[in-house]
Amino acid sequence: MPDTLPAVSDLESSMLTIIQTFHQYSGQKSNLKKADLKELINNEMNNFIENDTLDKLFADLDQNGDLEIDFKEFIALIAMVTSACNELFGEERSFK
Amino acid sequence: MPDTLPAVSDLESSMLTIIQTFHQYSGQKSNLKKADLKELINNEMNNFIENDTLDKLFADLDQNGDLEIDFKEFIALIAMVTSACNELFGEERSFK
Repeated sequence: MPDTLPAVSDLESSMLTIIQTFHQYSGQKSNLKKADLKELINNEMNNFIENDTLDKLFADLDQNGDLEIDFKEFIALIAMVTSACNELFGEERSFK
Repeated sequence: MPDTLPAVSDLESSMLTIIQTFHQYSGQKSNLKKADLKELINNEMNNFIENDTLDKLFADLDQNGDLEIDFKEFIALIAMVTSACNELFGEERSFK
């Protein structure tokens, strides 16, 4: 996808990476099953999320209770984790 | 920030880029003023957002009405635009 767009910024490229990562693990489906999300978190977010929180996380994310995570639910996870990282870095900055 | 973490994935690196971009434009402040957001969108999201939508966008994003965008409001923008891109790419895929 990125090489069809002219001169994407780092921020735009980041947004495309989020989309590509979702589809890499969802495959032809438009949703992630729990096993797909587990694999994604293990492989792509292991610095940011501990795998033993997956059960609670999945229940929290699966707002419509269909046992699958659609893209909007996935981006809500990304937003939540990114916000948590930002707050953590903020605390680190304030201690310096 | 990234070089203090071991082997970050492309997805994690994308999340760090979102944080870094926010702080690059907010500077020492913890919020983006409207002029900061305008500059950020012009420089970093011009493939994804047209600048003439800024006024409506800013009003929509500034949920607490303080005329500034905090990180949680910013990540809501990123989530919204990324979802819109994902839907657009999905439509393109379904036409092929």
